[in-house]
Parts: sequence; structure tokens; C-alpha cells
Amino acid sequence: MHNWSNKILLSNTAIRILLISFFITLFQYQGNAQEHPKLILTKAGVEKIRAELGNIPLFDASLAAIKAAVDAEIALGIDTPIPKDYSGGYTHTRHKQNWFTLQKAGVLYQILDDEKYAKYVKDMLMQYEEMYKTLPLHPKTRSYARGKLFWQCLNDSNWLVYVSQAYDCIYDYLTKKERKKLEKNLFRPFADHISVDSPQFYQRVHNHSTWGNAAVGMIGLVMNDQELIDRALYGIKGVNLDKKAKDDDGGYLNKDGKAGFLANIEEPFSPEGYYNEGPYYQRYAMYPFLIFAEGLHNVKPELNIFKYKDGVLLKSINALLNLSDADGDFFPLNDGQKGMSYYTGALVTAVNISYQYGGRDPQLLSIAKKQGKVLLDDSGLAVAIGVRDGKEEAFEKKSINLTDGPDGKQGGVGILRNEGLELVFKYAAQGSSHGHYDKLSYSLYEDGNEVLQDYGLARFVNIEQKGGGNYLKENKTWAKQTIAHNTLVQNETSHFQGKYEIGSQHHSDLHFYDDSDTAVQVVSAKEKNAYPGTEIHRTMAVIKDEDFEKPFLLDMMRVTSNTENQYDLPFYFMGQVIKANFEYESPALAILGEDNGYQHLYLEGKGTPSSKSTVLSWLGNGNFYTLTTITDNADELLFTRLGANDPEFNLRRDAGFMLRRKNTKNTTFVTVIESHGSYSPVTESAINSNSNIKEIKLVLDTADYTAVLITNVKGNSKLFITANTKVLKTTTHTVKISGKDYTWTGSYTYQ
Amino acid sequence: MHNWSNKILLSNTAIRILLISFFITLFQYQGNAQEHPKLILTKAGVEKIRAELGNIPLFDASLAAIKAAVDAEIALGIDTPIPKDYSGGYTHTRHKQNWFTLQKAGVLYQILDDEKYAKYVKDMLMQYEEMYKTLPLHPKTRSYARGKLFWQCLNDSNWLVYVSQAYDCIYDYLTKKERKKLEKNLFRPFADHISVDSPQFYQRVHNHSTWGNAAVGMIGLVMNDQELIDRALYGIKGVNLDKKAKDDDGGYLNKDGKAGFLANIEEPFSPEGYYNEGPYYQRYAMYPFLIFAEGLHNVKPELNIFKYKDGVLLKSINALLNLSDADGDFFPLNDGQKGMSYYTGALVTAVNISYQYGGRDPQLLSIAKKQGKVLLDDSGLAVAIGVRDGKEEAFEKKSINLTDGPDGKQGGVGILRNEGLELVFKYAAQGSSHGHYDKLSYSLYEDGNEVLQDYGLARFVNIEQKGGGNYLKENKTWAKQTIAHNTLVQNETSHFQGKYEIGSQHHSDLHFYDDSDTAVQVVSAKEKNAYPGTEIHRTMAVIKDEDFEKPFLLDMMRVTSNTENQYDLPFYFMGQVIKANFEYESPALAILGEDNGYQHLYLEGKGTPSSKSTVLSWLGNGNFYTLTTITDNADELLFTRLGANDPEFNLRRDAGFMLRRKNTKNTTFVTVIESHGSYSPVTESAINSNSNIKEIKLVLDTADYTAVLITNVKGNSKLFITANTKVLKTTTHTVKISGKDYTWTGSYTYQ
Repeated sequence: MHNWSNKILLSNTAIRILLISFFITLFQYQGNAQEHPKLILTKAGVEKIRAELGNIPLFDASLAAIKAAVDAEIALGIDTPIPKDYSGGYTHTRHKQNWFTLQKAGVLYQILDDEKYAKYVKDMLMQYEEMYKTLPLHPKTRSYARGKLFWQCLNDSNWLVYVSQAYDCIYDYLTKKERKKLEKNLFRPFADHISVDSPQFYQRVHNHSTWGNAAVGMIGLVMNDQELIDRALYGIKGVNLDKKAKDDDGGYLNKDGKAGFLANIEEPFSPEGYYNEGPYYQRYAMYPFLIFAEGLHNVKPELNIFKYKDGVLLKSINALLNLSDADGDFFPLNDGQKGMSYYTGALVTAVNISYQYGGRDPQLLSIAKKQGKVLLDDSGLAVAIGVRDGKEEAFEKKSINLTDGPDGKQGGVGILRNEGLELVFKYAAQGSSHGHYDKLSYSLYEDGNEVLQDYGLARFVNIEQKGGGNYLKENKTWAKQTIAHNTLVQNETSHFQGKYEIGSQHHSDLHFYDDSDTAVQVVSAKEKNAYPGTEIHRTMAVIKDEDFEKPFLLDMMRVTSNTENQYDLPFYFMGQVIKANFEYESPALAILGEDNGYQHLYLEGKGTPSSKSTVLSWLGNGNFYTLTTITDNADELLFTRLGANDPEFNLRRDAGFMLRRKNTKNTTFVTVIESHGSYSPVTESAINSNSNIKEIKLVLDTADYTAVLITNVKGNSKLFITANTKVLKTTTHTVKISGKDYTWTGSYTYQ
Repeated sequence: MHNWSNKILLSNTAIRILLISFFITLFQYQGNAQEHPKLILTKAGVEKIRAELGNIPLFDASLAAIKAAVDAEIALGIDTPIPKDYSGGYTHTRHKQNWFTLQKAGVLYQILDDEKYAKYVKDMLMQYEEMYKTLPLHPKTRSYARGKLFWQCLNDSNWLVYVSQAYDCIYDYLTKKERKKLEKNLFRPFADHISVDSPQFYQRVHNHSTWGNAAVGMIGLVMNDQELIDRALYGIKGVNLDKKAKDDDGGYLNKDGKAGFLANIEEPFSPEGYYNEGPYYQRYAMYPFLIFAEGLHNVKPELNIFKYKDGVLLKSINALLNLSDADGDFFPLNDGQKGMSYYTGALVTAVNISYQYGGRDPQLLSIAKKQGKVLLDDSGLAVAIGVRDGKEEAFEKKSINLTDGPDGKQGGVGILRNEGLELVFKYAAQGSSHGHYDKLSYSLYEDGNEVLQDYGLARFVNIEQKGGGNYLKENKTWAKQTIAHNTLVQNETSHFQGKYEIGSQHHSDLHFYDDSDTAVQVVSAKEKNAYPGTEIHRTMAVIKDEDFEKPFLLDMMRVTSNTENQYDLPFYFMGQVIKANFEYESPALAILGEDNGYQHLYLEGKGTPSSKSTVLSWLGNGNFYTLTTITDNADELLFTRLGANDPEFNLRRDAGFMLRRKNTKNTTFVTVIESHGSYSPVTESAINSNSNIKEIKLVLDTADYTAVLITNVKGNSKLFITANTKVLKTTTHTVKISGKDYTWTGSYTYQ
């Protein structure tokens, strides 16, 4: 067990926090803030909802579904068992179910004005009060911050975020005495346990703390308890944690001493709203961020929470929606479970709140319509009315560059989109404890399907048989390692030696991003720290050329190093091999290496180039794909298969192709990925099943410029030239290639 | 090159054929048979269509799509290049496109009464006439029966099946002189080439011959050429092939001397309409069967073709629709490409014709609606009107037992369905040259997804880069082998030693089939010839028990042998391993064997049972599945992975689990497969992820009865007893098990 008390240091309250507190106190809003409900529902909002009921299909359907669920729970009777289980066990599942049902029943009481729901909430709360006042720590000891109802404070916080809403809804239904009893014996000590009693959980910038802050703040708002509200917004007064201590995931506990809800907005979000852990964890944190913000907006409008940090909360929703593929599945950057999508409940909240407080963008309505449900509050009402009135427009995802870091200066993620093709290029910071060692990696999608995959996480979330549903060791030995990604591995070691302490000090840097010409969109970034002494500069362009059926990807990776190295560049293609233009042997299956993820790869084939343009085609999701990459005779071409050293079958048996270049200091990898044609097992027609490329050539490669000549099967050639040094958009360049002068303005040209 | 002339024997015309010919001549229909169009469209039909146009959405949409396609072709101009390519090459693709366009243009001329379409057809036909009259054999020599326009007579026949329809449509538009020119120089010699000049292709019972027969017959009907019509119906007069000769696929050319369209209906179809090669090839043969039948129906109604062999053509459509999963994908029995479904064009024809000539079953309309298009003829009109008028009903697939063999006496295929679960149990004959060595094999589906798969074929149909789109050698070395299927392998050799000559002499035998009780449906069959000296008796039950969430599969395989053998029983489960209740080692990947398909399997894990009930769970398609099988201590439990000795990546890397029992004479394998619960990456809830079974026990196993006791996790037990000898449905049995008497009537009991 950790002994956290040793790590807590007392400190003076920061000047900055004092000033903000003063500001808030000065303009303390005194209007209807003491009416109930006031948190998520408002008195005025409830009246509007009641007036529209029966005439707002999306809202009516959501209400009916929730009513059916709550009625079923009421029929079952109330059960608040003495806590004893981990996640998945009965007491855990029961208390989790209870928090959802309480919140819903509270809302039903307000909307339907039916006392049975208020009574149900009251009765259950009284049972909790009776139990909680003498409840010891949860008996399970695995967590770094044990809760009381649940094995971890995180789940206790989940409970309070929901239950504070229920309490708000029946506040006026209760007598003053009843309220006092609940607040004194249940809510106040509950809020204290997850905050002052558990600073290692609460006093951080982390998605766990965000839940804690929201829980404390929301019950504070309902109880009108300024101390709790302040604790929520600014952290526990005077408490600072050891800045070098680490949490169970290997991340720093509190590197720079920041804490509280506002710090949790400031730190992890970049100015455009990119969340440093990636979209999967952003989705998880979205609910407390937004639902507490909605409460603050209603009760403390003077805080202007939705304008905080230049409106980053609402921007983050837009960023998150843009971090999904054509089907709405989030890109699995860092630790991310594939298949998690904007159909998840937190995104219903996000879309509704964004619509309500972010200018009623009609494009959001089309997502709400797909989601098929709305929140039972003012924002859900607004969305349901918008959909009913046919205001929706298609949500158009465009190319977007999202910076990383609180100030937007720690690299970022560039997404280039053209027709069905989506490039996701990651040149971000480490991504906290959920980050992967994948500098300048990318994944490629077409029409919502993976063309070149990011593996995602190695975890079966909530599937108890698979390591209790927790992260599996293969998450560390495979999924986080560099070789699990479509980026460069030097000497079979991961970026930053796979060490969080090193990785978290660095980030890649944007060279340039330019989506101004839809036909030729480019993102370019550099990485100087992953391998000391080696600089990697990757420029990726999504190009629509009239001679090609569809947009294609041009990938140029320029590597310069002080030392001779072995470079491995893997391509995790999704599909079945159709054709290769090189000879290879299929050895008895060997394992590729011993560490850094290589121990999980089998070698299925090994060959050498037969041509300067090495070609591999595959068929996946009904499309043909061809990779053409510039090779020289000494290169090795490897077919790999995931699954070695995986006795529990925790990994998928996915294919890979790897280009290996040995004993090399400086080199440039140039690859084109084309999508072409289609195949259907119903029509059995193979349409346009061959690549449109005859050859690609690196015709210039200096410190200043890299130029690639792409010649198609008709013999037509196009030249892509990119500037390797920082240049102005207005700078005009001229270079001579094969005796001919090429002139252009800006960072790149394609002609 | 084959020298076919040596194999042709002249013989006297069979008495039977003479009699049928006489019968037909006697009742020769003289009505409007000489009007045009008459083949697929009729004069009266065209009038009806014209009257309804604009008011029949499905038909109107189909017409608009076809008009757009034909107009685009007309704009491109006519091209009839000198033949030179294989499939996929330009001349092949062009002539193929031409046949489709000619047929469509002919239909458009009739429906839209626009001469430009007639002129287009005429002009192209004249170009073909000019070329064909001096055209030599196609220059490519790979086929056993070379065509002239195409490399194989099969494609020439495809051409004529379509083009005869076009000719019929513009028959009256042409002058007598023009018709004479076309018939003399193009159609008649064309029909002769694919028949009298290519008897090895034409004079058989085979799907190729069906195309040939239909081609000759359809042009014969249009030309009113009785000689061609007779040749189509009865084969080439006086020609018989060597009965021992084999074709390129290894099948017999013409084992019993039968030929012609009627023989092609009689032989391969069982009385219920099961086609001996399986659904994938039935689908391919459906178009010529039905389109020629429709022509015969219109021009020679006295033949009553849709009532031939007790209406087997229409029954075959019903059989085929029932041989598809919940998504309409055909079960890949024998050589079958996965994903081929009732959305294929041939099934539009089948569904339309079945509706029109088979009693207007409203359930067919729901499939037509999903297909989204109809034929542009009387049958398509009827379907479009039915859909417009809202007559459709859901197509309800029930359990069905389809016999195999012309008389229904060569085994069969039993399909048991309950809720979303579908068991496909194959106890059929060999399935001609496309058959697999998979006696008593099965596959299992849930909601259209594979739970335990049949591998299907090893071929990338029409993908030129993969062996020219033809069968790959892995089709023989893996896909056809017994070990590629969910059935018993003895001593690592395939059934019938994998020899077609032996396999085609035998079939399994039904023991009993009983779907009368929806809750407990059973199919049971025996195989005595796959391994001489060994009898395999497999009984499969799909059981819905109130103590279980969903129906489960009970599989009992009783093996009795004269000799001690090694028995391998593989399970090709689809998904990722969740949990196993036994210990196993993960050795350095070894290859399982050297022949009979074993050379394609890697060994991923090897263990021994820890319990009498060995358990393996996996997650696939969002559901949990658990296999529980009775084991003893000496059994070996193997995890396999497909892909060894597959240098071209022609095989999928699919998982398998195998139960191996060595040195055994008689034994009974008992397995339960449960589907339970669900998992969604969006909700991240793992619902009911554990098996409901505590243990299964073989409590009685004699020559007369096998009894299995299934005990669930609540401790409740149920007994399944099946009779191993033939019994009457009315027979009452009593057996004593553990001192208790069990009494029931019929083949089985579950109590």
C-alpha cells in the first residue's frame, strides 16, 4: 500500500487562485440561484419541456425509454448492499445501477411531476445515508485511492456526479430536516472522502481528478456550499503533492502542483480542444467536464465557464467529433479501444451541450439524430426541437490540425481528408500515462475502414476473464511500443527507450500544415528527441490527381543521424496480400526479436527488392490498395504476423509489411499508398485492381528540399517538392532538377 | 491438349428421348409462338409494362438504371475487338460488356419503343456477324473447350444466352434478309460451335453444359429452329462421351451418358431442389436454368417446364433462399465464395420468376425489395406491382431438411434454426467436382455471422493477380481436405483418402430429422464409407431451454471402429479466445503435419484437460461463445492457426481448436456450443460473459442409446437421449440411467 500522507506538502494558496476567487465573490450571482432544480434542469427549463412534451419525437422517445427503465427498477425494489466487490461484482454493479437510476428518477419527477419518482429517490438516499454514516473504507485494497461505496474513489465520484443531480431534482420535495440529515451524514462526508481524504486522487490534473472535482462541485452547487465549490474549482486549499511521485499507470502524480476543475481544463486541453491523452480518454472525461460546466453555467453564470480558456470546453467537443472516422469511431490514438464512437452516452451529452451553449450549429443535429437520443434537460430539448423542425445539416468533417499542449506548443495531430480518405498523423506530446511511443506515426482510413491501422490498446475493457478487464501486459510489451505503429524504429528500440520519464519531456514539432488547396494537402513535422542524434522529418501529402481514380497518400520520411543504424519502417496493412513485385522466402516461422515489441512478431516472409519501386498490393474491405516504396538492393522486405509470445491470445493475428534498411546514417523513405478499384463477392467483379503507378523516384534530397517524381502507368509524371527548412508562405523558390528549373511559392509544390 | 474426338461414341437415340420428343411434337403449340418478342418479353407483357410505367417504383428505378447504362454505352460507340485475352483482359471484358448491353438495349427498345436501341443492337450484331463468319478458335489454349469470342465455350454460351434475348427483341425491326444473314453466319454456327463442335463441354450434366443448353435452346426458340430446341432439351443426338474421362477439375466428364437441359434438371437437383454442387454453384447455374425455362414457358407452354420433375426448378429457388444466412449470404458448402448472396443478379431473376410462376408468394416480395431491382419483363412487373401495393411479407426461414441426389436418396443437408441460431449440417453426397471431403461436417451461424466456420473455397474469383482468378492450389491442399472442416479426421487422412473416385461413389445417410418441436430440433446421420471399418454417427440438436439465455447446440458424435485410431475433431471458432479451463504450452510455432491439409496448420498451443468438461470461450461479433466438451485425461487439446506453407498468402490466418484422441477404437465426442451475452465497445458492458453450463456427462452410450446429462450453473440437470437404431416415431422406449427409468416416444427425448 502507498503511504500517501508522506507525499503531501502544505503550501500557501497561489496568488492567482486568490484573485479569481475574489473576482467570483465580487460578482456573486444572487438571482434565482437558490431555486431548485437549478443544476442541470432549471425551473424555467422544466416548464418549457412540459409544454413541448408529445411534440418532440427525439425527446419523447428518450423520455419513454428512461421511464421504462426506471419503472422496472422501482418494481424490483431498492437495494443498497454493503460494498464488497470489485468492478463486475454484484455490489459494484448494483451501486452503479443505482446512481444511474437515481439521476433518471429525479429527472422524471421534475418532468412528469409524479411523486412516486421523488419518493423513490428519497427512500434510496435515506438508505444510503443510513449506511454511509458508519461505512468504513471499501474492503478491496487494490486501488491507490480506495472509495467507500466502490473499490476506488473514481467510482465514488461517478456516483456523486449523478446523485447530486437527483438530489437537486427532489430538493424541494424534501423537508429541511431531511435535507440536513442527507447533507450532514451523506453528501458532505462523501465529498470530503473523495477530496480532502484522498488528495492523491483529487489533487491532480488527470481524468480521475476531473470526476472528483465535478462530484464535489456539483453537490456543492446543489447544497450552495461555497467551500465545496471552491474546492472543486481550485483544488484542496493548501494541499500539494510530491511532484516526483508516480501513479499506478507510470504517469507523474502531480508534476507541477496544479489541481482543481479549472486546472483540469487548462492543462490537458490544447487551445483547439485536443485532449492530451487522446480521444478515447477525452470521451471518458467529457461527461464530468460538461455536466459540471452546465451546472456552473446555470448556478454561477458569472463564471462564464463555457468561455473559460477561450471557450475550450466547447472547442474540445468539436475536436473530439473530428477525431472520429466516417462511421463516428474515434481514432485509437494512444490507449484507445477500437469501436468506441460518438454513439457513446458521453457524446450525447457533449453534442447536446455543444448545440445549446455553442451557437446551435445545425450540423450537430445530424449527429444527434444518428444517436437517436437526447439528454432530458434544456439542451436535449433544444436538440429535439431542432431535429423536429428539420434544421439538421450533415456534419462535414474537414481536414484539421489540432495542436497539443496547454498553449498549443507541444506538437499536435493533423488530419487530412479528401473524398473518403482520412490520414491521421500524430506528432504530439507523450499523452500522459496513456501515451504510446509513436512519434510521427500515422493511420489511414477509407470510408470508415482502416487501411493502415494503429493497433489501439491491448485490453478487453470490463471483460473480467481477460485480466479483470484491466490493461493487459501486452499493452506495454506490444501496444505502446514503437514497432506497433506505422513509424520508424531505430535499432529495434522504441522511441525514448520506451521510457515515460524521457518521453514526457518531449514532443514533435510541426514543420508546416497546409490544407488550403483541397487537391494537395500537406502536413509535415520533425522529431529530434526520440532517438538522440537522429532527426526524423516526415512530410505527408494527400493528393488528388486527375490521372488517379482516388486521392492517394505520399509519405516522405527523411532521416538524418550521427551514427549508422538499422531502420525499420512497418506498414500495418489491413487485408489480404494480392501481389508483391519482389521475391521472398517463407522461412519456418521465426520470432523477429526479443524485446521492444519485436518479441510479438513472427516473420512470415523475407525478401529483397527486385525493383527500385517495391510494390505490395492487398485487398481489404472491398477495395484494392497498393503501396509503392522506393528501395535499394540492400534493403530487406519482411512480412510479419502479430501473435508470438502471446499465450493468452490477447493480441490479434494482424499482418504487417516492414522495410528494413541497415548500416545507414542518412536516408529518406518515400512511399505512396493508393486506394483503387473495388471487389465485391456478390458481383465477383474486380474493378481497377492494379496500381496506377509505374515508378516513384527521389530526384532531389538536400537539407533544403526533397523532391519526388511520381510516374503513372500512362507515363505521365508529376513532381512533389517540399522545403525542408522553415519558409514563408510568400517565399518563391527555384530548384533545378535534371536540368530543368522548377519555380513555386510557399512550402511545397506539386506540378 | 485433350483429343476429345477419341472419346466420342455414337449411339442410338434412347427410346425415352424419342417418346418425349414425340409427345412434344404431338402437342406442338401453334398460337402466337411466332410473334416477337416471345422469349422473355411477350407482346402482351410489353403492353402491360408500358401501361404501368411511372407507377411502379421498383420497375421504374430498374429501368432508369438500365437506360442510363445503355445510353452511356451507346455514347461510347460499338467495339467488337478480335478476341485475344483471357478473363480480365480487354477483349474478354469488352465482349462480356457487349452481351449485357445488347440484352438491355433490346429490352429498352421494346419497353420504350425508341428505335435508337434497336439500331444499336442491329449494328452491333452485324459487326459480330461480319467478324464471326471467319473467326477461328480463340487463340488462348488453356480451356478444355475453347470458344471463339472467348477463351472457353462457357463464355461463348453466356454471350448467346443474353444475345438471343436481344435478337428476339429486335426480330421484327429487322428485314427478313437481315435476319437470314444473322442466323446463317452468326447464330446457327455459334450454336453449333458450343454444341456439336464441343461435345466435351455441351454433352454433360454440369453447370457449364446448362449454360450451353440454354444458349442453344434460346436462340433456337427465337429462330423457331426445332433442331436446336431438341438439341438443347435432349443433348446432341447420337453423341455419347467416354464415361471414364475426367474434366480439368477432376470430376467425371459424363459418367452415365446423360445430356441436355432436361437431364441437367433431373440429375443435379434433389426432389426438394437441392443442387448437388451446393448453393454457390446453384446460384451460378440459376440464370440459364430459369431464363431458358421462362423462354420455354412462353414459347412452348405445352412442355410445362416449371412443372418438370414435380416443379423442381421453382423448388430449387426456395431451397437456395433457405441455404442462406440471416443476411442472405449463401452457406459456403463445397466450393463456395463467402459473401455471395441473394443480392446477386441471378437471384433477382430467381426471385422474380419464382414469384411469377410459383404462386406469387408474398414473402418473396420482401427479398425483391431488399434487392432493390427487378427484371424488365412480365415477372419483374408482377414483383414491382406487388411491392408497390404493399403485399410483401417477411421471408421467414425455418428449419429445413434438403435431401441430396436425383431421387433424394443420397443424404442431404439439414438446417436447424431457432431464434438467431442456424446450424448447417452436411450429410450429403460428394457434390461433383466442387465437393469437399467433409462428411457430417457442420457450420454454425448467429444473426448472419459465423460462429464456427466452413472455410469455403481458396480462390479469389476474377482477381487476375491471384492465379488468374482461378482455383488456387490451396483449394485442393486445404479447403477440400477434411481437416479444414468441423468434422472427424481419422489418422490425419481425409475422408475417402481425399479421392474423388471413391468419394463420388458414396454418401452419408440420414438417421432421422425432426424439427416438429421448435424447442428441441434434431438431425442425425451416419457415415460408413469415409474411413472403411469405421462408422461415424453424428446427432446434432438445437435446444432452447428456459434455463439458458439463448438456444444452444448439442453435438454428439459416436465413432465405432475395427481398429485403433487417432481421432481429431477440430472446431473453427470465429473470434478471440477469452478463457480456457485447461493448461497448455505455447511452443515455438510448429507445423502440425505434412499432408491432407495439416501442412497448412501451425500449432499455437498444446495442452491436456484439467476437467472432464473442457471449456473454451471466445468473443466474436459482439457475442460470447462457450464450447464445453467431454474429455478424458489422455486427450490432447490443440490450438491451431491456419497459414503454414502458404507463401502467396492465399489462406486466411484463422484460428482453430482441436480435440485429439489417440489409440482409440470406439468413442463418443459430446460438445455443447452456447452463445451467451454480448459485448459492445461503445457501452463497454460485458453482459452474461460466462457459460451457463457446469458440466456435461455421457451417462449412457450403447448401440441402442446415447444419453447426455447437461447440468447448468444453478445445478439443474437435463437429459438428452437419442436412439442409435432406426425407430418409429411411435415407438416407446424406456431406459434406466443411474437407477432411474426414463420413458419417451420417438427418436429422442430431452427432459
